Amino acid sequence: MTTDPARRLLPLADQAAPERADAARNRELLLDAAAAMVAELGADKVTMDALAARAGVGKGTVFRRFGSRGGLMAALLDHTERAWQAAVISGPPPLGPGAPPLERLLALGESRLRTTLQHATLIRAAGAEGARASGAHSFAALHVRHLLAQLEVDGDLPLLAVALLAPLEVPVLEQQVRLDGLPVERVLAGWADLVRRVVGRPPVTPPGGAT
Amino acid sequence: MTTDPARRLLPLADQAAPERADAARNRELLLDAAAAMVAELGADKVTMDALAARAGVGKGTVFRRFGSRGGLMAALLDHTERAWQAAVISGPPPLGPGAPPLERLLALGESRLRTTLQHATLIRAAGAEGARASGAHSFAALHVRHLLAQLEVDGDLPLLAVALLAPLEVPVLEQQVRLDGLPVERVLAGWADLVRRVVGRPPVTPPGGAT
Repeated sequence: MTTDPARRLLPLADQAAPERADAARNRELLLDAAAAMVAELGADKVTMDALAARAGVGKGTVFRRFGSRGGLMAALLDHTERAWQAAVISGPPPLGPGAPPLERLLALGESRLRTTLQHATLIRAAGAEGARASGAHSFAALHVRHLLAQLEVDGDLPLLAVALLAPLEVPVLEQQVRLDGLPVERVLAGWADLVRRVVGRPPVTPPGGAT
Repeated sequence: MTTDPARRLLPLADQAAPERADAARNRELLLDAAAAMVAELGADKVTMDALAARAGVGKGTVFRRFGSRGGLMAALLDHTERAWQAAVISGPPPLGPGAPPLERLLALGESRLRTTLQHATLIRAAGAEGARASGAHSFAALHVRHLLAQLEVDGDLPLLAVALLAPLEVPVLEQQVRLDGLPVERVLAGWADLVRRVVGRPPVTPPGGAT
């Protein structure tokens, strides 16, 4: 029986053979350590050597687990994506269940934007196709589509969901934030405005203001 | 004096030294031949050998002009982008001037979508960063922003412009059309619906239909 709901939804790259429980636990501990290193130092600094030193294991252990730095990056992206999906499925509101659908949608965009910016190097290292193949996009798109249906939006919901998620992809966000130097808060406000237009809620303006 | 208006707007990768007029003309002829080959055979088939054979010149000439296949792909992308920009700036309506701004915006999306799908391999070969550095994105974004202003859209227009263009980028379109198998016409209709929502024109529905 699978108990992690995110696992069931996702065609993630899994281990070739079932791991013993302690091996799986060690793998998760290594991935937690690697994720902490990405948050603190950036993905560029997460090498096989650095991870082994951080986790207090031999370099051979890290190589046996992940094969290569590319393998580690892919596993780390899956790990992050699973944690994000679990937060959407069963975490606290407004990202998780319990908040009104528009609030959930705005929370999803914000967490997606921040996660993507934090993991941009990782996502690029795993390749756009890798990220797509992992099911990350289809999960997010399915969830946005579900929220649009709850909001009673009329239209081609799968396409509208993709259109809402497209500005949150790595190259677009990196262009805006890293190259053009736009503040993250402005990009977030712009995305929220886009959502309100798509959903058919008027942008927040002073009462009586005409468009 | 520069006479091509697209050239003035764009920080395109230019030749290291000014070419003599006949050399520039030969370069354009080679690029025209390469563009025709992309349209007929797909970018994968455009090799240095094949281009030399098609254009009836020696392989050495092609290598002297473009350095490598990567250099040819980048030059070809610039060439296509300049032609597209010229069509937007001074071509026939509705893509060019003369049509109402909403019609121009819809025509821009359609031509962008079709060009992107046709040149997806080329764009991927030149790299997402290459395409961005070439100014292609900033020209399209500036133009969409200009049309949104003409439509008297109220909001953060630079961000709305980027949001409208994001679903037309290579990975999103390839996912929808090549992997998910959606018909191009459906993707186009979805984009037009997105535009109408952003611009504040209601989607086309039967009169009396409530949302």
